[in-house]
Amino acid sequence: MPEVVVYMLEGRTLEQKRGLIKDITAAVVKNAGAKPEAVTVSLVETAKTAKGKGGVLFSEMPAG
Amino acid sequence: MPEVVVYMLEGRTLEQKRGLIKDITAAVVKNAGAKPEAVTVSLVETAKTAKGKGGVLFSEMPAG
Amino acid sequence: MPEVVVYMLEGRTLEQKRGLIKDITAAVVKNAGAKPEAVTVSLVETAKTAKGKGGVLFSEMPAG
Amino acid sequence: MPEVVVYMLEGRTLEQKRGLIKDITAAVVKNAGAKPEAVTVSLVETAKTAKGKGGVLFSEMPAG
Amino acid sequence: MPEVVVYMLEGRTLEQKRGLIKDITAAVVKNAGAKPEAVTVSLVETAKTAKGKGGVLFSEMPAG
Amino acid sequence: MPEVVVYMLEGRTLEQKRGLIKDITAAVVKNAGAKPEAVTVSLVETAKTAKGKGGVLFSEMPAG
Repeated sequence: MPEVVVYMLEGRTLEQKRGLIKDITAAVVKNAGAKPEAVTVSLVETAKTAKGKGGVLFSEMPAG
Repeated sequence: MPEVVVYMLEGRTLEQKRGLIKDITAAVVKNAGAKPEAVTVSLVETAKTAKGKGGVLFSEMPAG
Repeated sequence: MPEVVVYMLEGRTLEQKRGLIKDITAAVVKNAGAKPEAVTVSLVETAKTAKGKGGVLFSEMPAG
Repeated sequence: MPEVVVYMLEGRTLEQKRGLIKDITAAVVKNAGAKPEAVTVSLVETAKTAKGKGGVLFSEMPAG
Repeated sequence: MPEVVVYMLEGRTLEQKRGLIKDITAAVVKNAGAKPEAVTVSLVETAKTAKGKGGVLFSEMPAG
Repeated sequence: MPEVVVYMLEGRTLEQKRGLIKDITAAVVKNAGAKPEAVTVSLVETAKTAKGKGGVLFSEMPAG
């Protein structure tokens, strides 16, 4: 603990995911006084056809 | 903000997902005083073999 | 099912919460083919000192 | 209600998932005074390349 | 890991919460092959004015 | 997007929360190619009587 869940679009590379896990964990350890081995981070990846912003699916949005 | 997460079975059509995102966003804008572009909705879709109700997997339940 | 979770700042009125629950449920029933009595909506309310955007706490942000 | 969400690595067998749903539901019914048919459990499965502990991806960790 | 999150109404006693944590953890250990000390369970408690079923707030529903 | 949710025990200071929001956001911007103003972080704080590890409530655990 803490447990971190990140809701994001699929499509990130392995390198990006490795960096997310590493740097988010470091942020939690630094600021919450947690031991690294107690921190878990889960990336919940969603297709662009299953996530939206402003009421519009990401799959039907101009890139940006 | 707000951020909405919907836990549901997989299998909905693109049209259904588009409608969910659009109408949930409208419900949040109308009732929470949020700007549309600040509202995100993520559909977390789960296989019928990974979700249950009443202690029974949806994959092993009579349809209904 | 589906189960909906809304992450939002605390401070909404009872009337706003009632409307959120009612209209989000209607959006799910209409678009996902769910029965109303199977849809749950949980509002997870967070203090302005426990939520941020752009790296800044809402409690330390100009209103907007 | 209650609604239970389990964040776990993918790779469990159908038998394991069936047991998780059944036994977690029983635990909720026994301790929270809920009716079985009101309890939902969703297993959110994440690839080993999208989850980490101690800042390290499970895909890059020695098994253990 | 796994990490379990339970979305429920507030109002359970300490004894009920202790039982939930204990029995859900046992269910995960038994079925997912996890070590007990790796399993976390968080109870996210919501007021009856912030949760609904069938489009109706629990605070405005007949008990049942 | 991405949206980050952190499940943690209550009791952190404002300074700790400010740091968590700031540094987690920076980790997401750096690794996921997101714009800062699109990243939200919610801290879902749970009482020690509503969270457990290894089947034991934090409120009934020796500090450590």
